[in-house]
Amino acid sequence: MDTAEKIISSDLATRYIGVRKRTEQICSPLQTEDYVVQPVVDVSPPKWHIGHTTWFFETFILKPYFMGYREYNPDYNYVFNSYYETVGNRVIRTDRGNLSRPTVMEIYRYREYVDEAMLKFLHESIGDEIKELLILGLNHEEQHQELLYTDIKYILGHNPLFPAYSKDYVSPKVNWVENEKFISVKEDIYEIGFAGDGFCFDNELNRHKVYLQAYEISPNQVTNAEYLNFMNAGGYHDFRHWHAEGWDWVKNNKIESPMYWHLIDGEWYQYSYHGLGLLNPKEPVCHISYFEAYAYAAWKALRLPTEFEWEAAANQFSWGKNWEWTESSYLPYPGFVKAPGAIGEYNGKFMVNQKVLRGASEVTPPGHSRVTYRNFFQTHLRWQFTGIRLAK
Amino acid sequence: MDTAEKIISSDLATRYIGVRKRTEQICSPLQTEDYVVQPVVDVSPPKWHIGHTTWFFETFILKPYFMGYREYNPDYNYVFNSYYETVGNRVIRTDRGNLSRPTVMEIYRYREYVDEAMLKFLHESIGDEIKELLILGLNHEEQHQELLYTDIKYILGHNPLFPAYSKDYVSPKVNWVENEKFISVKEDIYEIGFAGDGFCFDNELNRHKVYLQAYEISPNQVTNAEYLNFMNAGGYHDFRHWHAEGWDWVKNNKIESPMYWHLIDGEWYQYSYHGLGLLNPKEPVCHISYFEAYAYAAWKALRLPTEFEWEAAANQFSWGKNWEWTESSYLPYPGFVKAPGAIGEYNGKFMVNQKVLRGASEVTPPGHSRVTYRNFFQTHLRWQFTGIRLAK
Amino acid sequence: MDTAEKIISSDLATRYIGVRKRTEQICSPLQTEDYVVQPVVDVSPPKWHIGHTTWFFETFILKPYFMGYREYNPDYNYVFNSYYETVGNRVIRTDRGNLSRPTVMEIYRYREYVDEAMLKFLHESIGDEIKELLILGLNHEEQHQELLYTDIKYILGHNPLFPAYSKDYVSPKVNWVENEKFISVKEDIYEIGFAGDGFCFDNELNRHKVYLQAYEISPNQVTNAEYLNFMNAGGYHDFRHWHAEGWDWVKNNKIESPMYWHLIDGEWYQYSYHGLGLLNPKEPVCHISYFEAYAYAAWKALRLPTEFEWEAAANQFSWGKNWEWTESSYLPYPGFVKAPGAIGEYNGKFMVNQKVLRGASEVTPPGHSRVTYRNFFQTHLRWQFTGIRLAK
Amino acid sequence: MDTAEKIISSDLATRYIGVRKRTEQICSPLQTEDYVVQPVVDVSPPKWHIGHTTWFFETFILKPYFMGYREYNPDYNYVFNSYYETVGNRVIRTDRGNLSRPTVMEIYRYREYVDEAMLKFLHESIGDEIKELLILGLNHEEQHQELLYTDIKYILGHNPLFPAYSKDYVSPKVNWVENEKFISVKEDIYEIGFAGDGFCFDNELNRHKVYLQAYEISPNQVTNAEYLNFMNAGGYHDFRHWHAEGWDWVKNNKIESPMYWHLIDGEWYQYSYHGLGLLNPKEPVCHISYFEAYAYAAWKALRLPTEFEWEAAANQFSWGKNWEWTESSYLPYPGFVKAPGAIGEYNGKFMVNQKVLRGASEVTPPGHSRVTYRNFFQTHLRWQFTGIRLAK
Repeated sequence: MDTAEKIISSDLATRYIGVRKRTEQICSPLQTEDYVVQPVVDVSPPKWHIGHTTWFFETFILKPYFMGYREYNPDYNYVFNSYYETVGNRVIRTDRGNLSRPTVMEIYRYREYVDEAMLKFLHESIGDEIKELLILGLNHEEQHQELLYTDIKYILGHNPLFPAYSKDYVSPKVNWVENEKFISVKEDIYEIGFAGDGFCFDNELNRHKVYLQAYEISPNQVTNAEYLNFMNAGGYHDFRHWHAEGWDWVKNNKIESPMYWHLIDGEWYQYSYHGLGLLNPKEPVCHISYFEAYAYAAWKALRLPTEFEWEAAANQFSWGKNWEWTESSYLPYPGFVKAPGAIGEYNGKFMVNQKVLRGASEVTPPGHSRVTYRNFFQTHLRWQFTGIRLAK
Repeated sequence: MDTAEKIISSDLATRYIGVRKRTEQICSPLQTEDYVVQPVVDVSPPKWHIGHTTWFFETFILKPYFMGYREYNPDYNYVFNSYYETVGNRVIRTDRGNLSRPTVMEIYRYREYVDEAMLKFLHESIGDEIKELLILGLNHEEQHQELLYTDIKYILGHNPLFPAYSKDYVSPKVNWVENEKFISVKEDIYEIGFAGDGFCFDNELNRHKVYLQAYEISPNQVTNAEYLNFMNAGGYHDFRHWHAEGWDWVKNNKIESPMYWHLIDGEWYQYSYHGLGLLNPKEPVCHISYFEAYAYAAWKALRLPTEFEWEAAANQFSWGKNWEWTESSYLPYPGFVKAPGAIGEYNGKFMVNQKVLRGASEVTPPGHSRVTYRNFFQTHLRWQFTGIRLAK
Repeated sequence: MDTAEKIISSDLATRYIGVRKRTEQICSPLQTEDYVVQPVVDVSPPKWHIGHTTWFFETFILKPYFMGYREYNPDYNYVFNSYYETVGNRVIRTDRGNLSRPTVMEIYRYREYVDEAMLKFLHESIGDEIKELLILGLNHEEQHQELLYTDIKYILGHNPLFPAYSKDYVSPKVNWVENEKFISVKEDIYEIGFAGDGFCFDNELNRHKVYLQAYEISPNQVTNAEYLNFMNAGGYHDFRHWHAEGWDWVKNNKIESPMYWHLIDGEWYQYSYHGLGLLNPKEPVCHISYFEAYAYAAWKALRLPTEFEWEAAANQFSWGKNWEWTESSYLPYPGFVKAPGAIGEYNGKFMVNQKVLRGASEVTPPGHSRVTYRNFFQTHLRWQFTGIRLAK
Repeated sequence: MDTAEKIISSDLATRYIGVRKRTEQICSPLQTEDYVVQPVVDVSPPKWHIGHTTWFFETFILKPYFMGYREYNPDYNYVFNSYYETVGNRVIRTDRGNLSRPTVMEIYRYREYVDEAMLKFLHESIGDEIKELLILGLNHEEQHQELLYTDIKYILGHNPLFPAYSKDYVSPKVNWVENEKFISVKEDIYEIGFAGDGFCFDNELNRHKVYLQAYEISPNQVTNAEYLNFMNAGGYHDFRHWHAEGWDWVKNNKIESPMYWHLIDGEWYQYSYHGLGLLNPKEPVCHISYFEAYAYAAWKALRLPTEFEWEAAANQFSWGKNWEWTESSYLPYPGFVKAPGAIGEYNGKFMVNQKVLRGASEVTPPGHSRVTYRNFFQTHLRWQFTGIRLAK
């Protein structure tokens, strides 16, 4: 291994350690019990995230490429596989919160074991293919860091005692544009998708041309105060603003407000990482479904931007507080191809019946997102930090 | 009323009679009992279609515009409203097949009453707004004619006695291109959406520019023989071809073949309007879900076209035997606006979590569809005549 | 065949014709459409009853015992088998209302064919075993006559148009005891179960001794007026009167009154065979579940009688207007044995999680019930004519 | 307080401490995580049991009767109320396993706080009514000790790693009668129900006379080996042995063996508190539903005893290894009255659609059960130690 290679490996090792430690720091305020529960199917127990991100490196790097590596425990493949059919059977998703074993401590031991092996492995020469897998694994773990934050919020925020996550948690400031005026973007052909040398997910490719009609887009996200106007105007009780499917969702689930909002003695409270507190009307509204974002826009006689409109204008406004629902369905870009093998299951197989979100949220790891980044969720989900930017 | 107007009215009356009679002809081979049942939520009882299409003219034309018109029976609004929240409460969809009354004969009497009133009304001078509503009503009824055909097929084709609809039913010939070679379309900006003077649905507007990468599209639809190859290659048992949601659908519903296919003593049979018969391998495959269309394309290492690719190339191939699944989600075109009032509920509120189908089917009324026509269904539905055209 | 035998056969033939004709008379006010629907799983389409009672004679008498009998249509076994696993596969219960074919007319033709064969067969000498089967078949058909009445009531009474069954239907008078005083029965050993030469169902055997504590039982059933007192006292909103399972049932189904009651402009209406009419406060309350009967009794600080208490006192009060819920679970009597073969499936396999009802209802065929007769339903069902008699 | 009273109080305090400690000992082998999960609705998280049994004493004794007692945390009433509607709202049952807070340690602190208060309280003079509540509370906690054992077994036994509960757990020996011959009991009137001075539950009263026909009852429970014969004879695949509802249960849940049985490489294993081990054919079969017990008996052309037959003969055989399903439905005895207030919700409101079990199981606290004790569960449940004794 020559010097240049050594430096690269050493850089990767440093980055590996950094990402792995950050995951553990996110969990440091938790009680053992908080690691275990799964109050709703979309929320995984934190201990599962701790194990699954470890399993990812063991399964896709150590087992195939690190000669002499001894698998920590063959049963863990069954426990920590998320959705990779290629890699075998697994605990059904709704059962993740039913498993008391392995314990949190056992999973941290597993994590230590894999980390040690990984660091040994990273001191050897590694090829480009493996480096790519490693970087994918780190980005994968960063995605789980965001999920950890939102899953923890759900677990604590749906507990009748409303415990705080940590009084030290600092919520980022929002960069508001005063005297809001919509940004005008002219009709033209725009280049959409990732370009450059760094890492991107396969769903950001290929970069390709899109023809956009002239449009305007807001420099700010919709605020809690603005959203309250919608609520006070009867927005949740007027079918005309809603998709038929959204209206069914509102009625079947008796939805009356964003997630984490509580009306107590006539005042609106909101659960945050600091516990239950008065709603701040100046903050951007979040924890709303696509259905609600759409209905709000319809009530304003405006609309959500497409993901292409968002990307083409993203340099002209500030983003990163809440993921923003777009009108675009999550579909492959022209020329998209799934990778062969298990890694090919990463993104492609979810490209149906989901909506694209753009931007990032306050719990996205720093540097993880970018202008071309595509997040995606089903239209009824609300436990992510999801917000609204309007277009017309 | 001057002569020109009289001619127009008389033309409209003729067209009105034609469309209304055709609905009744479709039902003429039915037994009374066939009009009543609803074996699955998506399939409506034929008698409901007969009443609902009548209710449409009564509610949106006669009641608001025909002075002195006496509503036939106020209870019928509850029974025959489909999904118009604006127009009041209605029988829940799953209950349509639970209603023995009004009887078939009573509904035909209601139909006669409304038709008489409509013909009287059409002999008066009618304004442009009403004319538009009338033409919408006729197109609406043509859509129900297609549904009548497919709902009847479901009702008879899921009966354990497999009764024929009519031995006289003639299935149209398919125009095959021998020596199939994919049609090449060059990268360019294309105009998409309806242009011209005639009628179109609001979802075909606005006509707008779309940038398309170079692509190729097949001149033929996939045949039963080709689809059997996919089945024989284990296509329904290999998760790699499927969306995650599609794979769940296959497993939960134990899907092993297109709808209406039956394996009897080692031979594949297909239920058609003539009853149960041997599968014709040369016919285009139909009655498949979007999930199946996608999986077939993935297995061939090809893909489905977008609705824009389909429209831009549609003059170069023959279509009209089966509706064709596209990769496009059903979304509003730039500048789309919902009409005010109940008519605004026609299309817009369904623009989420559905896929666009293009073309037409063997049971689409002649002249009803066009190159810009957009049909749409949820990804798991199969009771329409749905097929596959491949692109790359 | 000697003369005595001939007379018996002829008597049986006469009785056979009588029972079969009565079934058809019950259906005579129906429209074809009323024969087809199944608005809830427990209610079968009338045409299914017509076919199933016919299938019973064909399957259990003609096919095994009538030499040279040609089965009418082998597919009908699949369509008209109710729950006899011994006799093969069958249409799942929830699909009965999804079958438009065979048509009503086809089923009546099937009925005629079987009746002709049966009458031929009954003119031959028949053995005791067959005679028993025949009498079972006739009692079976009488049970379906009662179900026909209640299923028809459900079908018409849940239609938004509330059509009458027949203006000629005569509801029997109730024999009230004025100055109601509970009947006292002394502590003793009582003989329970059928004794005598006539027909009884296997669940009425063996006759056996039961020790009863002293008890009192009401000579009258609870009236609508009395039940309204319970409702007005908040009976449906006070968990203390209810079983835990009953309370869940009330809340999940938003039960607020007996079935067929409608509160219109502050007045209580009740659907009957004559259509919707004002509630008669003097009639015995009916169409209530066991849960409601129990809750009413608990509210009165009384209780329901056991089936043994009911039987031991039945000669001292008048019964026959509504089936009466008892506190007894439906269990086998000492010495009960299931018959071998399909007939053994008649009663025994339902002896779990059901409650016994005693008496008869206004739609029970004359002479069908008796003091030892045991009817049984699940605790939440209400579509039978079910009422309340109190004990203490 | 005179000396006699002091001794009684001191005895009660000793007994209180004994019962409370035993609960904690049962949990001592658990990991924190094992306290948290609820893998199925019937199984409560052990930490919930720890809190709920504490809440019982706080709610029904300390709060109403101990002057100056300060409630530990008012929110805990919401968290630890099981089903007492009288005492207010509560976490819905399916959510018990979704609560990470209060933590295990916090609940033990709550327990300590209540125990201290209780011991102070028990050193004061207490009246008879309170003494009765206390003894009810101790019996209540003993019932939860049994549930703790069975819930823990479910939690660990359904984990894919099959962890042992404790290698030190000692399963009691079974007292077999060699050369099994059924015990004969003669026809007579028997006294059934509790008599004497000690504690009994309200459902064991009133003691009353029951007339029993002559019967025979087995001195032994059915063994695993005998049950395997039923399985090998196709017992799970022959509808004739089953109730209709049991047969649906078998098919819908794909039941093929008792709970905790696993067929691995052709050998039957059984999960026990020691982990997964080979099935012992000589042990009595357990973890079967009533449906299975009934089907086994039907296959043997025998039957289950009624609870009265069981009680009348219980002195003639040995019991206490597994609870034994009886043919009796859980119903009130003659003269049964619910206590007023919340305590009245203890037993009475469950007296519908459940079967009585008699005897005790290997995890019933010593001295808790007696010949007149009535346990009860729904017919499909299997997670208790439930077995079969035959009668004829």
